[in-house]
Amino acid sequence: MEDMEGNSEKRKRMSCGLYSERPQNLKEDIRAALEYGFHFIVTQLTHKEFLKGFEGSPDAPYVLGRTDQSLKATEWGRLVVGELSRYVDLDSAGTESGRFQDVDVLEQELGFASHLGVPAVLIHLSGPRNLQLARIINDKLYSDRFNCSIWLQMPMVHISRNDPIGDLEHDTWDWWNDLRTFCDYDKRVGVVLEIPDIKHLPSTEEIDRWIGEPVRALVLKASYFLLNQYGKPVLPKALQEIVKRFMTIDVQYVFHLDIEVSDHSLYVKYMSFLGKKLYVCDTMAEFVQGCEDFLQNPLQPLTEHLEANIYEVFEKDQVKYDTYQKAVNVALERWSSEEVPVIMVVGAGRGPLVQAVLNVSKVLRKPVKIYAVEKNPYAMNTLAHRNKDEWNGKVILVNEDMRHWQAPELADILVSELLGRELLNIILLLLNKHIPGSFGDNELSPECLDGAQRFLKPGTGISIPKQYTSFIAPVQSLKIFNEIRSNRLPDKPLRQFFETPYVVHLANYYQLAPTEPLFEFHHPNYERDNRRFKSVKFPPQARAAILTGFVGFFEAILYEDVTMSTNPSTHTTDMVSWFPIVFPLQNPVHLKAGDVVRVSFWREETTDKVWYEWCLESPFKSSIMNPHGRSYSIKKH
Amino acid sequence: MEDMEGNSEKRKRMSCGLYSERPQNLKEDIRAALEYGFHFIVTQLTHKEFLKGFEGSPDAPYVLGRTDQSLKATEWGRLVVGELSRYVDLDSAGTESGRFQDVDVLEQELGFASHLGVPAVLIHLSGPRNLQLARIINDKLYSDRFNCSIWLQMPMVHISRNDPIGDLEHDTWDWWNDLRTFCDYDKRVGVVLEIPDIKHLPSTEEIDRWIGEPVRALVLKASYFLLNQYGKPVLPKALQEIVKRFMTIDVQYVFHLDIEVSDHSLYVKYMSFLGKKLYVCDTMAEFVQGCEDFLQNPLQPLTEHLEANIYEVFEKDQVKYDTYQKAVNVALERWSSEEVPVIMVVGAGRGPLVQAVLNVSKVLRKPVKIYAVEKNPYAMNTLAHRNKDEWNGKVILVNEDMRHWQAPELADILVSELLGRELLNIILLLLNKHIPGSFGDNELSPECLDGAQRFLKPGTGISIPKQYTSFIAPVQSLKIFNEIRSNRLPDKPLRQFFETPYVVHLANYYQLAPTEPLFEFHHPNYERDNRRFKSVKFPPQARAAILTGFVGFFEAILYEDVTMSTNPSTHTTDMVSWFPIVFPLQNPVHLKAGDVVRVSFWREETTDKVWYEWCLESPFKSSIMNPHGRSYSIKKH
Repeated sequence: MEDMEGNSEKRKRMSCGLYSERPQNLKEDIRAALEYGFHFIVTQLTHKEFLKGFEGSPDAPYVLGRTDQSLKATEWGRLVVGELSRYVDLDSAGTESGRFQDVDVLEQELGFASHLGVPAVLIHLSGPRNLQLARIINDKLYSDRFNCSIWLQMPMVHISRNDPIGDLEHDTWDWWNDLRTFCDYDKRVGVVLEIPDIKHLPSTEEIDRWIGEPVRALVLKASYFLLNQYGKPVLPKALQEIVKRFMTIDVQYVFHLDIEVSDHSLYVKYMSFLGKKLYVCDTMAEFVQGCEDFLQNPLQPLTEHLEANIYEVFEKDQVKYDTYQKAVNVALERWSSEEVPVIMVVGAGRGPLVQAVLNVSKVLRKPVKIYAVEKNPYAMNTLAHRNKDEWNGKVILVNEDMRHWQAPELADILVSELLGRELLNIILLLLNKHIPGSFGDNELSPECLDGAQRFLKPGTGISIPKQYTSFIAPVQSLKIFNEIRSNRLPDKPLRQFFETPYVVHLANYYQLAPTEPLFEFHHPNYERDNRRFKSVKFPPQARAAILTGFVGFFEAILYEDVTMSTNPSTHTTDMVSWFPIVFPLQNPVHLKAGDVVRVSFWREETTDKVWYEWCLESPFKSSIMNPHGRSYSIKKH
Repeated sequence: MEDMEGNSEKRKRMSCGLYSERPQNLKEDIRAALEYGFHFIVTQLTHKEFLKGFEGSPDAPYVLGRTDQSLKATEWGRLVVGELSRYVDLDSAGTESGRFQDVDVLEQELGFASHLGVPAVLIHLSGPRNLQLARIINDKLYSDRFNCSIWLQMPMVHISRNDPIGDLEHDTWDWWNDLRTFCDYDKRVGVVLEIPDIKHLPSTEEIDRWIGEPVRALVLKASYFLLNQYGKPVLPKALQEIVKRFMTIDVQYVFHLDIEVSDHSLYVKYMSFLGKKLYVCDTMAEFVQGCEDFLQNPLQPLTEHLEANIYEVFEKDQVKYDTYQKAVNVALERWSSEEVPVIMVVGAGRGPLVQAVLNVSKVLRKPVKIYAVEKNPYAMNTLAHRNKDEWNGKVILVNEDMRHWQAPELADILVSELLGRELLNIILLLLNKHIPGSFGDNELSPECLDGAQRFLKPGTGISIPKQYTSFIAPVQSLKIFNEIRSNRLPDKPLRQFFETPYVVHLANYYQLAPTEPLFEFHHPNYERDNRRFKSVKFPPQARAAILTGFVGFFEAILYEDVTMSTNPSTHTTDMVSWFPIVFPLQNPVHLKAGDVVRVSFWREETTDKVWYEWCLESPFKSSIMNPHGRSYSIKKH
């Protein structure tokens, strides 16, 4: 029953490729590389060298490169990245006809790569200006017949020979950013970064920005490796750090090794070792991973099973329930009356908060009268079983809708999960669907709790949670941008997908500033107005970037000093229940160093729905997104 | 380099489940079943037995069945099929209020199964009338929250106690057909068939019809097994035959075993043995399987690579090229002139037909002058390499579009593949896409060859192929019907997907009559009119069935007595290049025994496109599908 105790391997798979410029025998070279442990090779496909033997033949004009029969199609498609001729430079000064010739060569090479079916072609960028190259790539990407990804290789840090200091003109991120902007942020265009030598390391912030890009591979040279005491190659600490940083996104590694190196396998083994040594598999990573396994099913093909799963996944977040338990503990410790306190758990689910309350009661030896209110009859079935088997029948079970229940008495303490729709959101997210999601204020949590407070003793009654605040920060994530715009549904304008917030487990992103507080809510709340507005300004940008939206988090006070947070600077350790929420902008905004980002958010409501509107105010104005909740809103009932 | 010599395992995976009515300890029972080798169990989820221990408790009304915490959600979702209470029979005579009660029980049981997340619920049918049951199932399927498949269990052959002969009223296929029709052919509703004992075997034709249904599982009883010489359980030959027949579709097996049986694992092992013994892995199965492996890629996520793949997959069909070689052989043997014959291979690709011609020339010791005409520059690159490395430069390579080439002389023999777009179709099919596909006349093949015949010596020139005929038969395939109607594209009416033929590797289907010839084409063709019309009548149906469309095949005469066929009755052994084509009807048509199916087909053309139209004439009229090629046509240029 391996499912019951499945151990997830705590390591990152390190996919390594070997660079082999123009091997005589490609098949043999691949066989050797695979034997060393490499997963693919990078090699040139077309070169005049391949014309040997055709001298004087009428067929010579037909020879473009290697014959496609050097490898099987599956091998081309799995094992080879094709490097384009390095001498082609469309954007260097030269004659018009010289450029045309270069264009022809490049188009033919790209066409040939596509014919072979290699997964990617690698193109070297050697300077900031790549406009003509961008046009050709953009033209190819438009074609239905072109099936390769484009890997653009450039230095992670540009070291000019004349100017060793490296000013803004030599920011290679700009080379990349210009080219991918010309290519409309197409997701098939990625970056391959040459790791610099140890004397020219990039700053942490520069790397952060690269982490927000579609980095496909890092290039490592043999000369960067040191030999350890056993004579085996190892990376200096500083380069290990770079590798570690990129482990949060799925990069591969391309090795440029000298032929003299006797045993290439040492490098692959070392990377595999790093994949184990450097990989931080925290609770969050495990949580996500465990849930991915969910999707496999040996029975018939299935649709999603959400019901018992939802509860189960949610209940896995022990940290969250421990935090609730702490809050209940504080409240009960202070309970000085002789009377037995009445505690109501509203939206009890399968009982994790009931359990938390009973735990406190037992530890403090203070009896409580506890109600568990839950409307789902299938969760009630579980509660009934637990009440018999675990709770000695102590809990009063109420199978009612919170909105209609006539409580027989008022509560001293009302305990509720921050249950908007975040549960469902997490599950759907794990099923790889992006759907409208939970925000700082957890969507309807204010309204839900406002509704439940009629069970609470006026004046003295305690609500757990007591208060929460949402936080916001500008973010660059072209990945999310691309996912949103790839949405296509009949009868729905694309706009609708941009006017919707998404719950996302962000990895391939770059947060452009620290978070700022946005909205605050308190419970009990006798004002009953949960509309809000705020305009938030962030510090000037330190470097150029692309703003694609805003990412949201929250901090909650459960009771007194017991808090719970998803805000990065105060994040509750190992709590996994909430992923950040992203509010997109319709178009990517180019930010320059010094630009100030300012955004406005509204939380609006009518009698039957709640929604957000948002707009960028600086450095450019955007339209106000989602007027009257036209694209996205949450029903109150 | 496992890709290079990957061996596909020639066996069918036999997924087996164990029936366990209401085990005391479900987790333990599952553990035992998995240890025996079973893959899942079938068990009841709700029963009054589970109320034990709640006597007198106020929670008793909340107990529906087992607690969901008996198993982890992944276990519910992977290991358990839930059997519904057998005593619920909505359609038996009884009071209205009794029926309401039963409806409530059924709805709750279905809801609970969905809450647990079991992949399927099993419901027993015990008679022909299941209208009320159908309404509840249909109602549940409509709900977003219901996530289970429905398995309807019934006897494969109904044996009435009073009437052992079994007349039409006892055709259990009718029970099934009525219910699934009420449920709008929903693909989540499947059949579980109780294999009959050896005295009541169904006819081959009855089984054929079941093969056309979504059979999810076969039920086997311990009593059907014999003991072999080693005392181990084996199925009688006749029941093995039934198992073998169902191997073409993906069924699972549910075992009802007696508790006395000491070692349950013997049954699973035996089924696994049958999976190896009975599985016919012909060239076709291997071909399809090999190409499925195509899709895996350890590099970055990929889109489809069609180019070199297309050639390679196509060239794998050695039988096809051997047949061509035979035809060329006949033609060259008869070549009596002193002159060296001029042979043109048009659409030479990477040269398989060039190779075939050279083989014949060598074997017969007759020199030939051979041209290879191909417009794809990347295939030309391959031809150039082959001409140098394999053909001693003997082949005259022409990198031209057939339509524009000015041939320097006329050909004695013109050789061409039946190349419409069938190549691309096969590949796309293997990539699990259903796209407009190749028919008997191979779409544009007539027009292509008509165009090429200007290179042929008038009067004496030989075209290979010389003639072909398309064939058609009525077919039942609700699977295809469901796949077509699940298509959703913005700006396209659903009609469009029904007015399109599809290339399909048919498995879960039932051919309702032998094929009949449809259209015929000859080459060379100096009339140049490829429009056609024919009305085809099939013999009366032997038994009730559902007509969902027509399936097409072809037979070709390459030269003299050398032929090539995909028509089932004359299919060229091991030739894999063409899958059948299916012309759908917009609505499933219920056929009764004795009904005569009659269909009309048109092949129409204008100066720029070719298309088919079709309509049913009997037993009902349908609209004429695809007028003027509005939904599907092939461009000529």
